[in-house]
Amino acid sequence: MLITLTTDFGLHDWFASVMQGVIAGLNKRATVLSITHQIAPGDIRSGAFALAAAYRFFPKGTVHLAVVDPGVGSARKPIAVQTSRFFFVGPDNGLLSWALMKEKIKAIHALENEKYFLHPISNTFHGRDIFAPAAAHLSLGLPISKLGPPLKDFVHLPWPEPRRRKNGIEGEILYLDHFGNAITNIDSAALESLGGRSLCVYLGRKPRCPVCDFYQAVPSGKPIAVLGSSAFLEIAINGGNAAKTFSLRPGDPMTVQPRR
Amino acid sequence: MLITLTTDFGLHDWFASVMQGVIAGLNKRATVLSITHQIAPGDIRSGAFALAAAYRFFPKGTVHLAVVDPGVGSARKPIAVQTSRFFFVGPDNGLLSWALMKEKIKAIHALENEKYFLHPISNTFHGRDIFAPAAAHLSLGLPISKLGPPLKDFVHLPWPEPRRRKNGIEGEILYLDHFGNAITNIDSAALESLGGRSLCVYLGRKPRCPVCDFYQAVPSGKPIAVLGSSAFLEIAINGGNAAKTFSLRPGDPMTVQPRR
Amino acid sequence: MLITLTTDFGLHDWFASVMQGVIAGLNKRATVLSITHQIAPGDIRSGAFALAAAYRFFPKGTVHLAVVDPGVGSARKPIAVQTSRFFFVGPDNGLLSWALMKEKIKAIHALENEKYFLHPISNTFHGRDIFAPAAAHLSLGLPISKLGPPLKDFVHLPWPEPRRRKNGIEGEILYLDHFGNAITNIDSAALESLGGRSLCVYLGRKPRCPVCDFYQAVPSGKPIAVLGSSAFLEIAINGGNAAKTFSLRPGDPMTVQPRR
Repeated sequence: MLITLTTDFGLHDWFASVMQGVIAGLNKRATVLSITHQIAPGDIRSGAFALAAAYRFFPKGTVHLAVVDPGVGSARKPIAVQTSRFFFVGPDNGLLSWALMKEKIKAIHALENEKYFLHPISNTFHGRDIFAPAAAHLSLGLPISKLGPPLKDFVHLPWPEPRRRKNGIEGEILYLDHFGNAITNIDSAALESLGGRSLCVYLGRKPRCPVCDFYQAVPSGKPIAVLGSSAFLEIAINGGNAAKTFSLRPGDPMTVQPRR
Repeated sequence: MLITLTTDFGLHDWFASVMQGVIAGLNKRATVLSITHQIAPGDIRSGAFALAAAYRFFPKGTVHLAVVDPGVGSARKPIAVQTSRFFFVGPDNGLLSWALMKEKIKAIHALENEKYFLHPISNTFHGRDIFAPAAAHLSLGLPISKLGPPLKDFVHLPWPEPRRRKNGIEGEILYLDHFGNAITNIDSAALESLGGRSLCVYLGRKPRCPVCDFYQAVPSGKPIAVLGSSAFLEIAINGGNAAKTFSLRPGDPMTVQPRR
Repeated sequence: MLITLTTDFGLHDWFASVMQGVIAGLNKRATVLSITHQIAPGDIRSGAFALAAAYRFFPKGTVHLAVVDPGVGSARKPIAVQTSRFFFVGPDNGLLSWALMKEKIKAIHALENEKYFLHPISNTFHGRDIFAPAAAHLSLGLPISKLGPPLKDFVHLPWPEPRRRKNGIEGEILYLDHFGNAITNIDSAALESLGGRSLCVYLGRKPRCPVCDFYQAVPSGKPIAVLGSSAFLEIAINGGNAAKTFSLRPGDPMTVQPRR
């Protein structure tokens, strides 16, 4: 049985590994795969985006465990969510919500049954003491209802929908990846709504780059926008780093317009 | 069977992976989990602390393999240690000793039996050529005594005990984690010895922060000390980086005193 | 069955993990080990060197999957190569060629059979959509010929042979590792051709360091050259970082000469 991990723990310390140790102690047949541990500390939106981009490439039945949890030890609830294809476990702070947007929700439960906690429970590391044991028990086939009482809903991060403007589509930058590519909220449906014309990406009022099919459609060092592997438009520089070159940040606005 | 890795090899190169390849070639059923490969190069104390913080969260029988080995190729001995619950394998330079402080030692052996080495043996990578094969053989059930002659003891890193002062407890910073939290050598017993009063952490003569139960007990951006997940007092900033903000270093002194 | 990954995807994002998810969905018994994901973006030579240094330490039958692919989506072919001991999968841009130099080639095939692709195929992430599925199918025992038509050869990166000079051997720096050690193209055969005399490494016209057996043969902080674990001469500083101290870069020339 597969369990994935998405955290802001980094790889510098032992935190991610002890979650794996706890899981191995409960279910020695579980395979644990790390989606990433390098979400910026406390950056719930980037964690939500990474999980949403990755989760569907894992086999049916996978338990997706995510911990970006700046409110650990305070009032936010730990939860587990069952969908028609997967389980999700994490803090109820919106982290799971972008992945859950396209899933058919079957059950939502608070993690309150201390029988399935690792004792003694720390105030600072629920990943180890509450979330990892819950994921391990789900991977063993424990019904989700055993973990705690049902909840009616979970916290939703607002998804930034792209907006149709007179002369194009206004969107924003959602995520900066390791290559310096800036992933936007513009999907293929939004692009198609502009018709089959050649398109141009604007940052502020500046036309920045054409929308093409692959990075090498422009010469090395030149900017380009492509429909990326996450099915969103990405602003890139062929062989370079667009995020650094254009000083891009998550939340920055951008537009796509037909070329004149 | 589980084998953990704790090294200063980083993840930039192939060094950690070839240890896994060597283990897989000897025991294809072994599961290898990385505690961390990002100990600062040659930093035996941080390696010892990470291993000591993590090892007990893995299942009984786990082989803990650690390599922070600035003396590779020189006179320091490669060793394996069996305790009542685990095996430990690494260079005899103190790296294993903080984890072994709370373990019941059953046997200590030098790794000298070349039958269990990977040949030809390099002078610079005993992780691959001596330690990984030893760990793999132990995970297969080889008696530790086959690996080489028994030793009476191993090298102990001195553990910095906190010291009781007239008006509080004097400790030091042991480890800086990825979040910039500074883990000290003050444990819950030391805190309790100060009675149930509210406590304050001093850095130098400056009162820096209160001791609380969880990070969000202070407003965002404010410093706080909490008994962390490693069971030691940690100096943190809610939503920030205490190590950078206060320019903290391992070895820096700090004190805990009752609030006036 | 083992599959290794060598990429420039980094560990910041979810890219490496979804390759593992895709593999797990096709072959749940496959074990995936990462050689490294931290090749500098698009640095085919460093990727080729890392793969060549690591691949032979994995068990016979391992599928080595490598993706450093600045030309993704353009004309370069995706290929699979079977040797007498391993499989290799990746873009045909030279990345696989240094590992293949010492292997006995059995078959080379283009990955063109869309039956073994993940659909829909993106233009930017063939690691997920073409290479990972191919590796998974090979690990399940699919004959390589099913993946696409045979090819006569693959792209070879020129290997920089060291050159014999009147008073020594001229080589170059091939790879800088995490410790700041500079791995050169001088192997033990080249060193032996200089006879049993004591040797000195020159950077430019400056004699920089002696060739010794292990790092600690010189005092802490002093430079040294040793025959490293990859079987090439490495320029190091005992307890320090030679790459930074001497501002070394891959491609920089160096020479080894007998000491006067």
